[in-house]
Amino acid sequence: MDVSNVLHMNGGFGDNSYASNSIIQQKVISMTKAITEEAVTGVYGNMFLKTICIADLGCSSGPNTFIVVTEVMKAVDKIRRKFGRQSSPEFQIYLNDLPGNDFNSIFRSLPRFREELKEELGSEFGQCFFTGVPGSFYSRLFPTESLHFVHSSYSLMWLSQVPKGVEMNKENIYLASTSPSSVIQAYYEQFQKDFSMFLKCRSEELVSGGRMVLTILGRKSDDPTSKECCYIWELLAMALKQMVYEGLIEQEKLYSFSIPQYTPCPFEVKAEVEKEGSFAINRIEASEINWAACGNKFNLPHSFNDDGYNVAKCMRSVAEPLLIDHFGESIIDKIFQKYGEILSDCMCKEETKFVNVTISMTKKERMDG
Amino acid sequence: MDVSNVLHMNGGFGDNSYASNSIIQQKVISMTKAITEEAVTGVYGNMFLKTICIADLGCSSGPNTFIVVTEVMKAVDKIRRKFGRQSSPEFQIYLNDLPGNDFNSIFRSLPRFREELKEELGSEFGQCFFTGVPGSFYSRLFPTESLHFVHSSYSLMWLSQVPKGVEMNKENIYLASTSPSSVIQAYYEQFQKDFSMFLKCRSEELVSGGRMVLTILGRKSDDPTSKECCYIWELLAMALKQMVYEGLIEQEKLYSFSIPQYTPCPFEVKAEVEKEGSFAINRIEASEINWAACGNKFNLPHSFNDDGYNVAKCMRSVAEPLLIDHFGESIIDKIFQKYGEILSDCMCKEETKFVNVTISMTKKERMDG
Repeated sequence: MDVSNVLHMNGGFGDNSYASNSIIQQKVISMTKAITEEAVTGVYGNMFLKTICIADLGCSSGPNTFIVVTEVMKAVDKIRRKFGRQSSPEFQIYLNDLPGNDFNSIFRSLPRFREELKEELGSEFGQCFFTGVPGSFYSRLFPTESLHFVHSSYSLMWLSQVPKGVEMNKENIYLASTSPSSVIQAYYEQFQKDFSMFLKCRSEELVSGGRMVLTILGRKSDDPTSKECCYIWELLAMALKQMVYEGLIEQEKLYSFSIPQYTPCPFEVKAEVEKEGSFAINRIEASEINWAACGNKFNLPHSFNDDGYNVAKCMRSVAEPLLIDHFGESIIDKIFQKYGEILSDCMCKEETKFVNVTISMTKKERMDG
Repeated sequence: MDVSNVLHMNGGFGDNSYASNSIIQQKVISMTKAITEEAVTGVYGNMFLKTICIADLGCSSGPNTFIVVTEVMKAVDKIRRKFGRQSSPEFQIYLNDLPGNDFNSIFRSLPRFREELKEELGSEFGQCFFTGVPGSFYSRLFPTESLHFVHSSYSLMWLSQVPKGVEMNKENIYLASTSPSSVIQAYYEQFQKDFSMFLKCRSEELVSGGRMVLTILGRKSDDPTSKECCYIWELLAMALKQMVYEGLIEQEKLYSFSIPQYTPCPFEVKAEVEKEGSFAINRIEASEINWAACGNKFNLPHSFNDDGYNVAKCMRSVAEPLLIDHFGESIIDKIFQKYGEILSDCMCKEETKFVNVTISMTKKERMDG
């Protein structure tokens, strides 16, 4: 199954229709702020650029869309002041996501965003030109050597497709401790293929010395079936299994459903970067964020304000298009109701965390043969 | 009234929801093909470009959106073969329209368009990168010196706003033989202000030697109230007046309605270009196209296939958002029914034509002081 039309229909983790997601994204971006600033210093400090070209890959649509680019632009301005440079560069901002993303809503919110930006950064700040770039980041999206800075947050764990040969995974919908080794291998190989294609494309698009900062939902452990990355999906599988027992879903239907995701550990990310060879790694690190961070403590009525409900809501924005595509729309509410109950139950008993792998790298000088 | 949110909601003349419009656009583009090819030769023949950056301003959404850029890309490929250059440049294509344009529908049709392009132009053809650029072309849209070729078809007759001081125009909705001279002056000054701003912005965005080809709905006569450009709106005003008599529209409401358009003659276009000073004019010419060209002889049921109906349909795609904004949605069908009848009647009796003004120019070398 090629999932590119289904995935990101709701924007993946970057989606904003659920406030809980915004909060996770904002936390991640604030956690990686220092890395972003360091990378921007590397680009803008070392080259004198009249125009700085920045791409956010998997930008989704909604308030989060502009958080990343705002951080990057603020970092450039901070460095400009630090270096005592008088005139600000111009910013060419490329916002990328799959063609099914709601670019109309991004574009319609641009005038207001520009106002806010001007208010926050003052009139000295350089002109910003925003463009939307529809397409998969597992293909070329930009002309050769046209980018200075690439950012992607919570998008690269999505594979281009469900790996081939995962039928043996049975009632698991993602990797799990009971997954056969052939299934684990198939998932890993799909990740390797996709991620190395991503690196190859970006290496062609970035100028020498250009930077890339990626945050990927991942794991710390070497074991790809580790609970830290698989548990969240195991609990969804549990909800689906209950519905099989209740006769609401056919067993065959559950057996043929798989989440096209791979949550790599830092070592696996590093290995692909080194194998591809175009980038020098500046930093790679893993960080943690509580599932409970999905909670939006401010806007929800009290009765809904429990962690399980919030995480289910957050996961719904991610998984709903995939689930609707496979199981149909009619049972969706039921699935997430059950999932919420299961999540609540387990979050009372144990501390549960997402792991982020963040990598910062520099495009090496081209070695033309 | 700032009409930028209303205008182009339906894409102005470039809109495709009405097949008739597609046909007009296609005819205009085929009429200006030689000029486009000449201009592309000027850019691509004189500079060796690895990436050629092309902007289509007022691209609208639908089949027409890709007609222009396809023509430009084909022209580049033709010249490449003629000059015996082995490798094709990459194409960075910027599709611009107001933020209210339906970019989602453009982006969703991109994968199919790419397939067609590949089939037509072969695998030798360079990679194409498509981006959407939301914003008014009466402001900066692109970084300094980042474009090689700018194209705009049937968009620049739209003003940024209804000119101030046109209240004296009474039952006229556009310029007419009965318009007071102060109204004519107000329209002309708004055109001058808008078009010179357009030229200033583009002069900053184009590289020296870069080319621009614009086709504007205009007139041949020196008289801005000439029938060739005003008649189409006079007939719409006639339909509206009938509705005032019938008590369906208040007279005050009609008196306060104005079309934010100016249809310049070649001399007026030339005068602004010379005054702004950044561009050398290569060619400027006026051409004609029959109103009846709106007719789509292929897809409509016979009963609907009369010229008046087709022109009304064509004009509806242009004027509907403005009319709805001012008069409300409930009487729209009635307006266009009457307009169609009036158009049919007059098209039987006389030959009626749109006039296009096409200008091709080159960005001069920068004279930095």
